[in-house]
Amino acid sequence: MTYRPWIEAGYRCVIQLPVQWGDQDAMGHVNNTVPLRWFESARIAYLEQSGVASALAGEGLGPILASLQCDYRRQVRYPDQVWVGARVVALGNSSFRMQHAAWSQQQQALVTEGSSILVVFDYRAQRPQRVPPSVRQLLEHFEGRSLEPASS
Amino acid sequence: MTYRPWIEAGYRCVIQLPVQWGDQDAMGHVNNTVPLRWFESARIAYLEQSGVASALAGEGLGPILASLQCDYRRQVRYPDQVWVGARVVALGNSSFRMQHAAWSQQQQALVTEGSSILVVFDYRAQRPQRVPPSVRQLLEHFEGRSLEPASS
Amino acid sequence: MTYRPWIEAGYRCVIQLPVQWGDQDAMGHVNNTVPLRWFESARIAYLEQSGVASALAGEGLGPILASLQCDYRRQVRYPDQVWVGARVVALGNSSFRMQHAAWSQQQQALVTEGSSILVVFDYRAQRPQRVPPSVRQLLEHFEGRSLEPASS
Amino acid sequence: MTYRPWIEAGYRCVIQLPVQWGDQDAMGHVNNTVPLRWFESARIAYLEQSGVASALAGEGLGPILASLQCDYRRQVRYPDQVWVGARVVALGNSSFRMQHAAWSQQQQALVTEGSSILVVFDYRAQRPQRVPPSVRQLLEHFEGRSLEPASS
Repeated sequence: MTYRPWIEAGYRCVIQLPVQWGDQDAMGHVNNTVPLRWFESARIAYLEQSGVASALAGEGLGPILASLQCDYRRQVRYPDQVWVGARVVALGNSSFRMQHAAWSQQQQALVTEGSSILVVFDYRAQRPQRVPPSVRQLLEHFEGRSLEPASS
Repeated sequence: MTYRPWIEAGYRCVIQLPVQWGDQDAMGHVNNTVPLRWFESARIAYLEQSGVASALAGEGLGPILASLQCDYRRQVRYPDQVWVGARVVALGNSSFRMQHAAWSQQQQALVTEGSSILVVFDYRAQRPQRVPPSVRQLLEHFEGRSLEPASS
Repeated sequence: MTYRPWIEAGYRCVIQLPVQWGDQDAMGHVNNTVPLRWFESARIAYLEQSGVASALAGEGLGPILASLQCDYRRQVRYPDQVWVGARVVALGNSSFRMQHAAWSQQQQALVTEGSSILVVFDYRAQRPQRVPPSVRQLLEHFEGRSLEPASS
Repeated sequence: MTYRPWIEAGYRCVIQLPVQWGDQDAMGHVNNTVPLRWFESARIAYLEQSGVASALAGEGLGPILASLQCDYRRQVRYPDQVWVGARVVALGNSSFRMQHAAWSQQQQALVTEGSSILVVFDYRAQRPQRVPPSVRQLLEHFEGRSLEPASS
């Protein structure tokens, strides 16, 4: 089994990104902030592909990142390519939780895993809002299943 | 009570960093990867000030980041200054856990909190090692108290 | 003679920035993109301190970077502090030219020099505009002298 | 004529890079430091593909960036892909000059151009060295022509 079917089994949105030489720090491996940039890129791609980004924008809302968690499983070095997945695993009143994973083409292995909490935010009023019904529908449609409730 | 005593009460190591205009992304606030750069800088400062960095280097070892967790409490914008604290809160067989916090001078408030797990690593052998006794001593001395055990 | 008077002699705006550990790349010195972030921060500080930023904003305009040039004189390493200067040296019809320099506190030496061309830009119309007379006045007032013409 | 043959006509080494959402700053376009990361990645790819990186390493040498110049022709926004070229255009005693260009897939246009001076450097002795004959040969072979002398 190669990495692609593995990714595609669980992750609704997968993007491919190059590891750049300059992503490495003085330890000679990819700096700890870089996988979080990968996760961000996958998060944005997910919101666009699922239709959630434009559904939120249509109601004058946007996502805001409330928290982030990341496990660094293996060091990544240039040259390499990573496949980065995003999926929504839980849906709350005003937020939803995403999981992220990055696979290295060189190592044929999972290198970084993590999760993030996205809050539906009214940037003008500067406060959280309930997840609109249209967004719930889009998320469950994109995931192909009903989502368990998140804590908020 | 101002922010400095508050920081200094709990955090053995506190550094000050400017928010740069270019730290902001297209949402007009500091990008989510930036507080993790702040935490990294505080982590490095802690390891140097406590003597842990040179004690590890003296045994041919170095710290490696195993995991990271971050809560984004408030948006940060340019111009601002942040005070970023690091402290060790738990000590395991081959790892220790740090807490991090960033305070905004403009907002006079905690803006980001987080924690990280650092593993004592033999970069030549590419594997974890037990925390050397000298490092345990330095950490407990720097924290001024005995540290609760971490999970690994 | 120390570095501060030297800077202050020629540069109307000087900011101080820390070198962060994570600014270093796999060569163990500050990555080539980092001094350009320093220059950007000095450029923004200059535009704010001179009043140019708000004068432009008042006319619905903003600066846009058209070109950049940078000489890397010395390698910079963590830990260090840099003093970064910005000054306007030439003023054209729709643009002005800035010079930049960064001094290292550790090395007590000039480490990076450069220049940039800033165009006065109408972001709505997406095209350059003439430098408003109020901005010319602010620049010459801030520099304390009349400015030679730039090429455009 | 599309962009690919145009690039391939003049540039011996061309890489493809995604524009990431987080490459954008508060102006809503790609930050000025990002094209310099693209150029760096193309520079590294060129040195590897031409055999220069390993020829230098074999003599205990490495390249060091002495200067950089960049023209920002058009704003770049997410989502996009860029094609980034590198070629050597002049060869001096201890340095060589590269040209860089980035094309946007969205805009089907050249978006950024620049050049850089790379010095052959002995990192142990911390000083420049003459370009080794093997490296001259590799560069002229890779470029498919003899190279004009650079100033140093």
